[in-house]
Amino acid sequence: MRHTITITVENKFGVLSRVAGLFSGRGFNIESLSVGETLDPTISRMTIVTRGDDRIIEQVTKQLRKLVDVIKVTDLTDSSFVDREMILVKISATEKNKAEILRINEIFRGKIVDVSPTTYTFEITGDEGKIEAFIKLIKPFGVKEISRTGKVAILREMNGE
Amino acid sequence: MRHTITITVENKFGVLSRVAGLFSGRGFNIESLSVGETLDPTISRMTIVTRGDDRIIEQVTKQLRKLVDVIKVTDLTDSSFVDREMILVKISATEKNKAEILRINEIFRGKIVDVSPTTYTFEITGDEGKIEAFIKLIKPFGVKEISRTGKVAILREMNGE
Repeated sequence: MRHTITITVENKFGVLSRVAGLFSGRGFNIESLSVGETLDPTISRMTIVTRGDDRIIEQVTKQLRKLVDVIKVTDLTDSSFVDREMILVKISATEKNKAEILRINEIFRGKIVDVSPTTYTFEITGDEGKIEAFIKLIKPFGVKEISRTGKVAILREMNGE
Repeated sequence: MRHTITITVENKFGVLSRVAGLFSGRGFNIESLSVGETLDPTISRMTIVTRGDDRIIEQVTKQLRKLVDVIKVTDLTDSSFVDREMILVKISATEKNKAEILRINEIFRGKIVDVSPTTYTFEITGDEGKIEAFIKLIKPFGVKEISRTGKVAILREMNGE
């Protein structure tokens, strides 16, 4: 089963590799990972998406909690949460297909972050389904470069009510 | 100096912890990290922002290139590139300040991704300056939760022209 886990950590050397090492040591691949500062720059928050046996993931989260510099571990999987990701995509554009490419970007409420005579670079945000749908539509035009953040997730406030 | 490095890797166990380990082993802290799939799901792209001595960073990138499963390493620092990040922020809202909070979100062209009687959750994207400005403005209202992606970066197409 797929798990979305948030981990609050002290922003120190080696925390990231120790956390990632715990997953890979158990044979779990990390599908997506994002790390960014919180309001307190000495504390970072990681969002990890991984897939695996529920019981073993539970063991991993228990071990994560024991790590030095790990403050809090939350497995959001059984809660109601919002998750989002962002991609930057550089697309080849010709005179012939520019209008169509811009139309797709508009439908997905993307932002244009760079333009050249032969390319557009778009910023798209959304849940996984939206991002995948955008990639599927835009792919045939020729993707020159793609850079995708990992997911970030936050509990819904009315969770379980 | 601050460095923005993109690394294309085979999507396999342990790559992430080996890459992160190379930085922490040299005493570099990773300020921000994002990993996401590329068009080919067996290949992921990481964007790492770190700060350190230029010559040592060059050594680290050389060592990264030698790692099994690492396909390509690019230090964007001396090039012209676009970088963006995204945050989800849950803000406390009262009847009195709701209008003002929504106005700030509108100015930053944020999206509302969750609402409850006492909170709003916004999604904001932009460069670091914009994200920091938003946080600074919204912080006094009371931030209940924050989740920030690492940066993603892409070369500008007219780079150096």
